Amino acid sequence: MDSSREFVKDVKRVIVKVGTAVVTRADGRLAVGRVGALCEQLKELNSQGYEVILVASGAVGVGIQRLRYRRLVNSSLDDLQKPQIELDSKACAAVGQSSLMALYDTLFSQLDVTASQLLVANSDFRNPHFRMQLSETVGSLLDLRVIPIFNENDAISTRGHPNEDSSGIFCDNDSLATLLALELKADLLVLLSDVEGLYNAPPNKPHAELIHTYVKEKHEGEITFGDKSKVGRGGMTAKVKAADQAADAGIPTVITSGYATDNIVKVLQGQRVGTLFHKDAHSWTLVKEIGAREMAVAARECSRRLQALPSKDRRKILLDIADALEANESLIKVENEADVAAAQEAGYDKSLLSRLALKPGKISGLAKSIRILADMKEPIGHVLSRMELADGLILEKTSCPLGVLLVVFEARPDALVQIASLAIRSGDGLLLKGGKEANRSNAILHKVITEAIPDTVGEKLIGLVTTREQIPDLLKLDDVIDLVIPRGSNKLVSQIKDSTKIPVLGHADGICHVYIDKSANMKMAKHIVLDAKTDYPAACNAMETLLVHKDFLSNGGFNKLVTELQRKGVTLHGGPRASALLNISQVNSFHHEYNSMACTVEIVDDVHSAIDHIHRHGSSHTDCIITEDSKIAEIFLLQVDSAAVFHNASTRFCDGARFGLGAEVGISTSRIHARGPVGVEGLLTSRWILKGNGHIVDGDEGVIYTHKSLALQS
Amino acid sequence: MDSSREFVKDVKRVIVKVGTAVVTRADGRLAVGRVGALCEQLKELNSQGYEVILVASGAVGVGIQRLRYRRLVNSSLDDLQKPQIELDSKACAAVGQSSLMALYDTLFSQLDVTASQLLVANSDFRNPHFRMQLSETVGSLLDLRVIPIFNENDAISTRGHPNEDSSGIFCDNDSLATLLALELKADLLVLLSDVEGLYNAPPNKPHAELIHTYVKEKHEGEITFGDKSKVGRGGMTAKVKAADQAADAGIPTVITSGYATDNIVKVLQGQRVGTLFHKDAHSWTLVKEIGAREMAVAARECSRRLQALPSKDRRKILLDIADALEANESLIKVENEADVAAAQEAGYDKSLLSRLALKPGKISGLAKSIRILADMKEPIGHVLSRMELADGLILEKTSCPLGVLLVVFEARPDALVQIASLAIRSGDGLLLKGGKEANRSNAILHKVITEAIPDTVGEKLIGLVTTREQIPDLLKLDDVIDLVIPRGSNKLVSQIKDSTKIPVLGHADGICHVYIDKSANMKMAKHIVLDAKTDYPAACNAMETLLVHKDFLSNGGFNKLVTELQRKGVTLHGGPRASALLNISQVNSFHHEYNSMACTVEIVDDVHSAIDHIHRHGSSHTDCIITEDSKIAEIFLLQVDSAAVFHNASTRFCDGARFGLGAEVGISTSRIHARGPVGVEGLLTSRWILKGNGHIVDGDEGVIYTHKSLALQS
Repeated sequence: MDSSREFVKDVKRVIVKVGTAVVTRADGRLAVGRVGALCEQLKELNSQGYEVILVASGAVGVGIQRLRYRRLVNSSLDDLQKPQIELDSKACAAVGQSSLMALYDTLFSQLDVTASQLLVANSDFRNPHFRMQLSETVGSLLDLRVIPIFNENDAISTRGHPNEDSSGIFCDNDSLATLLALELKADLLVLLSDVEGLYNAPPNKPHAELIHTYVKEKHEGEITFGDKSKVGRGGMTAKVKAADQAADAGIPTVITSGYATDNIVKVLQGQRVGTLFHKDAHSWTLVKEIGAREMAVAARECSRRLQALPSKDRRKILLDIADALEANESLIKVENEADVAAAQEAGYDKSLLSRLALKPGKISGLAKSIRILADMKEPIGHVLSRMELADGLILEKTSCPLGVLLVVFEARPDALVQIASLAIRSGDGLLLKGGKEANRSNAILHKVITEAIPDTVGEKLIGLVTTREQIPDLLKLDDVIDLVIPRGSNKLVSQIKDSTKIPVLGHADGICHVYIDKSANMKMAKHIVLDAKTDYPAACNAMETLLVHKDFLSNGGFNKLVTELQRKGVTLHGGPRASALLNISQVNSFHHEYNSMACTVEIVDDVHSAIDHIHRHGSSHTDCIITEDSKIAEIFLLQVDSAAVFHNASTRFCDGARFGLGAEVGISTSRIHARGPVGVEGLLTSRWILKGNGHIVDGDEGVIYTHKSLALQS
Repeated sequence: MDSSREFVKDVKRVIVKVGTAVVTRADGRLAVGRVGALCEQLKELNSQGYEVILVASGAVGVGIQRLRYRRLVNSSLDDLQKPQIELDSKACAAVGQSSLMALYDTLFSQLDVTASQLLVANSDFRNPHFRMQLSETVGSLLDLRVIPIFNENDAISTRGHPNEDSSGIFCDNDSLATLLALELKADLLVLLSDVEGLYNAPPNKPHAELIHTYVKEKHEGEITFGDKSKVGRGGMTAKVKAADQAADAGIPTVITSGYATDNIVKVLQGQRVGTLFHKDAHSWTLVKEIGAREMAVAARECSRRLQALPSKDRRKILLDIADALEANESLIKVENEADVAAAQEAGYDKSLLSRLALKPGKISGLAKSIRILADMKEPIGHVLSRMELADGLILEKTSCPLGVLLVVFEARPDALVQIASLAIRSGDGLLLKGGKEANRSNAILHKVITEAIPDTVGEKLIGLVTTREQIPDLLKLDDVIDLVIPRGSNKLVSQIKDSTKIPVLGHADGICHVYIDKSANMKMAKHIVLDAKTDYPAACNAMETLLVHKDFLSNGGFNKLVTELQRKGVTLHGGPRASALLNISQVNSFHHEYNSMACTVEIVDDVHSAIDHIHRHGSSHTDCIITEDSKIAEIFLLQVDSAAVFHNASTRFCDGARFGLGAEVGISTSRIHARGPVGVEGLLTSRWILKGNGHIVDGDEGVIYTHKSLALQS
C-alpha cells in the first residue's frame, strides 16, 4: 500500500458525496446506471462493516426535467406558443427529491440494504440540540446497518440562492458534506466528481497530470481549474475548498471519479485513486519530491549541457565519480550494512541478501570499471558514415546520446553505479528506480555520484525515484523519456512493457537452447552443456532446453551426458520423444524458463527441426549449436534469428563484460535498436549532419547529385 | 462503416436479450448498475425511433437470493441447524420475476420510458391464434413507444427442466429470443453476454482472438469454448446456437458484452463490436480472408525462408519483380485509372488525385529504382564488428533482417512498390495497408509483386490488408510484428502510436526551423529560406519557423527577406517580438506545422536562444543554421539534437533519395533505432555470432580474455 494511504486502515465511518454531474445524464434525467453502480459499491462497504453515509444531490435537476415534461403533457397547443415561465426551483426540488429517493430505495432494496432519508438545512446546525439529536439518529441508523442518505432540504429552505448557477441548480452540497463529516465525526470523506480527481491543468489538456496528494502550500495558486466540465455543475473549486476544509479538521478526503464502478472500494483498499487531502500531507516526503515530468525534463536539460561539454570534461566527471566512490567507501558500507541487516530481519532469502551486500573490494572494483569506461574512445560525435551528396555538400551520420533513460532495477545496488556511469559516458540523462530493499545503499550511492557532477551540468542529470508509486507517472511520459530499461524478474519486465508507450529494452524470458548435432564431438558437447546449465542456473543466459539429433542417441554419448547432468543434480523433463526414451516426466510447454537446476530435453530429426523448434518455442535470447560439421554450423548460425547465436561455445558467454563491452545495462531480445548485451553503444542514437554553402533543392533541378562515399576521418 | 455492418441501416425492430450473467452479481443479487446502464441504452434507441423489445432473464436467480434471505429471517436457531431443503425453483421464479420487473419499471420510468411485461411459455407458440395476437399486442405497444419486456413464464410453466443447471437456473432464454425474433419479424437480434463476443479460444487465453464475423463453414468445429465463465450460467454454446438459427432465418444477430455501457448503441451505429452472425457472411470477402495473426505469422515464416536464400537468389527476386512490373504495365494502368476515375467522381481534391495517379513513366521509374536496389551491396549478414574474446573464440556482430513490418500508408500506390522492394532487400516480411482510394491499384501491384516471389519463399511474404477494420487486430500482435511504419497524416501517426505496443517508426510533426545568425550571408539566407518554405510547402521537411538573430535585423537584409517571402505568397505569423516589429498576427503556439504557404517568424538573442527555442518548440525533425561563422555553426550542429541538423543548406534535403539511401520507408524522429530518412539500413537489426571450439565460462576461471579487435574481412 502507498504509505500516504495507510490511514485507511483506521477508517470506520465513511461519508460519500455524490453530485449532480455524476447522477444525472446530459438530458437531465437520472443516470440510473451510475446510480446503480454507486449503490452496489456502498452495499459492498456496508457488508464489509463500514459505516456508510451518503450525501446525495441532483434532486433539483431531476425535478426540472420531470416538471418540464409534466408541463408539456398538460399544455394545450396555445400554451406551448407562449413564452415558457421559469420553473420554481423549490417545486423542482420537491418533485426531484422524491424521484431520487424512490430510485435509491428501490436499488438498495434490490441489494438487501435499507436506506433512510434525512433532509437538512444549513440553519439547522445553529441549534446545538439539533446537532446532538442528529448524531444520535445517525448512530442508531448505522447500528442497524441502515445507510442514511442526506440532502439539503431545498424545497423548504428559506435562504437565498447564492450558489445557484444559470440552470437553477445548487452546487454546494460539497460544503454540506464537509459539515456533516465534522458533525458526525467521519473517518473519511469521499467527494465523487466527473473527472479522476484534481489535475494541475484542465484535464483535457495534453500534459495535465493528476495530483495524487494535494499540498496546499505547493498546489494552491499553481493550479488552473479551466472551464467547468460540460456535465458537472459543481465545479472543482468548490470541491477543493470543501476537501481542504475537511482535511484541515483532521478528516482525510479524497476527490475521485463517480463514473468508475469501483473507485470508492479502491480508496478504502488504500489504492492511489483520485486526489487525497490530508492534514499531514505537507510533511510527507513523497509529495515534497518533484513531480515525474519535472524530474524527466530536468534530466534532459542536464544531459544537453553534458553533451555540450568537451570530451575531456566528460571524462573527468567519470574519474571524479570513481574517486568519490572510493573516498566515501566507509559511508557507503554503513548504509549498505543497514540495508542488509534490515533485509535479514525481514527474512529475505539468501540469494537476495547476497545480491544486496556490497562485498569487500566491490567499491574499488566499481571505481576501476568506471575508470576503464572513462578511458574508452569518446563514443559521442563519432562519425559513422560520410558522403558527398553534391559538390560542397557533405552529409555525415554521427553518434549522439539517446536522451533520457528510465532504468528500473531490483536488489543489486552496484547496478546503480554501473548504469549511472554508462549513462554519463553516453551523454544521457537518467532516472533510476532501485529495489526498496536497497533504499539506503541506493540513496548514498546516488548522493556520492551526483555530488561529483559539476554544476555546469547539474546533479539532476541522474534522478533517483524513491517510491514505486511514481513509476506509473513516469511510464506515461513518452514525450520526455526515450527508453525504459527494466532489469529484474520476467514479471517486472512484462508489467512495464504492458503499461507504457515508451520503447522498452530488455528481455522477459531467457529460454536458451543448446542443440547437439549428430556430428558433435561428444566430449565437447558434455563440457558445454554442463557449463551452460550449471555454471549459474539462475542467469538468463543459462541453458533451459537441450535439443539432441536423433542419430546422436545411438553412439552412447547421449546416455553419458544424461547421467552426468543427473549426477550434477539437474532434473530433466522431456518432450514427447525424450520423455518416452528416458522415462522422465513430460513438459506441458517447451516455452519454459526454469532458472534452476532443471532443464527440458527433446530429440529432433536434424538441424532444420532444431531451428524450427527454437523459432517456435524460444525467446530469441541465446542459442547454441555443437557440431564438427561447418556446413551444418553455417545453416544454424545463418538461420536462427536470436540476439546471440553460438557455435561450440557455452551460452553463458552472452554477457556485456565477456563480450568486451565494459559494463552492460542489460540484455535485449527486442529486434528494434540494440540487441543482445547492451553497453554504451546501445545508449546512443545517430544524427545526420549536412554541411553546405547555400545549397537549395529547388525541385531537384539545380543540384547534380554525386552520392560519393567519403573516407571516415579518424 | 465496416461493410459487413451495413445492414444496420435497414434496422427498425431490435430484440435485445439480456442473460443472468449480465443482470446478476456474484452474490446472486441484481447488478443494478448494469441493469441501469442497459435501460439507459434502450431509452436512447427508443428516442432514436427504433422499436425496442427486451428479453430479460435472471428472475430465478434473483428469487433464490430473496427466498434464501427470507428463510434466514424466518428461521429459529433450531431451524438453521437442520439441513436446508432446496428452494422450489418455481417459487423462486415467482418472487424473482416481480423484483426484476419492479426494477425495470422504476428505472425506465426515471428515464420517461414506459415498459410492459409479457410472460410467455414455449407451448404458447403452438397456438396460431396466440401467435397472431402476440404480434398485434407487441405492435400496439411499440406504436405507443412502450418497451415490451419478455420473459419465460417459469413460475407456471409445466414442462420439465431440461435446461436447468446445478444452481437451478434456466439457461435457454437465448432460444426464446430467437423464437421471438422470428415471430415478431425483428430486423436485428442482440444477445448480451459477459464477454466481448465469440472467441476462437477461451477468452482468458493469451492469444484468444475475438471473431468479428462468424462463418459456420469456417468456425464450426474450430472453436473451443473452454469452461463456462464463473458468472455466466448460459454459456456461449447456447448463444452461438441461437444466433446461428436466427441468422439462418435472415435475422442478423450480434453477440456482445452487456458489461459495457454502450455496446448496443455501437452495434446500431455499424461499429464492429462483438461477433456478428449473418446469413450472407460466408460470401463476404472480408471473412474469407485469413486472420491478422495468421497473416503475420505467415509473413515471418516466408521471411525466414527468404533470409536463408543465397544472396544472388534474393537479388533475382527483385529483378523479377522489376520485370513483372514492366510486363504488366498496361494492366496496372487500367486498375489505376479506375481508381482515379472513382476518386474524381467522389469529388476528392486535386492533390489527392495527383498522388493517386501513376503518371507516364512511373512504372519504368519504379522498375529502375528496384534494379538499383537489387544491385546495392548485400545488406544482410554484413559483419559490423569482429573481436577475439579469447584464443580461438571469435565474436562477430552481423546485420540481419528486422522480422515483420506493418506499413500503413495513404493514397500513393507507388509507395507500395517502394516499400515492398525495401522489405525484400532487407529480408523482412511485410504487411501493407494502403488507402482505400487506391484499392484497385494496390491490389494489382500486390498481385504482380507477389507472383514474382518464388514458391521457395512464398507469396505470403507480403500480405495486403484490405480493410481498415483489420488494423486494430494487427496492432495488438506485438509478439509477431516487430515494427509499424505509418506514412501519412499526423493524425494517422498519432492514432497508431496511441494504440499499439509495437515500436512505431515515423514522425507525427515536422516542425523544421531555419535560424539566421547575425553573421549570415544575406543573399544565401534569402535563397535557403525561400527554398525551405516554398519548394514544396506540404512536405514534412519544409520550414515552419524562421528564427532570426536580433542583430541581423539592423542590416536591412531582413526586411528584404520578409518582403520577398510575402511577394512569393507566404503568410507570416509572428512570435511576440516579431509580431510587434513586423505588425503581423501573433501565433498562439510555436509548436505549429502549417503544411502550406505560411510560417512563423521570431527574433532571438543569439544561437543559444535559437537552440533553446528549437528544443522547446520543435519536433526533432530537421533544423538548419545559416551562418558564415564556423564556431557558431559548430555549437548549433553539436547541440541541436534533432534527427537532421544542417549548416547552410535547405531543410528540403532531408530525404532518403537525396541522402543517397535509395528508396525510403519514411522519416523517423524517434530516438530509438533508425533516425531521419529510413532506407534499407533502418529495416535491419543485428545479431551476435560467437564461434568457439568448446569454450566454457566455468565461473570465468578457465578463460583468459583477450578482447582484441579484429579487422573486418570484406
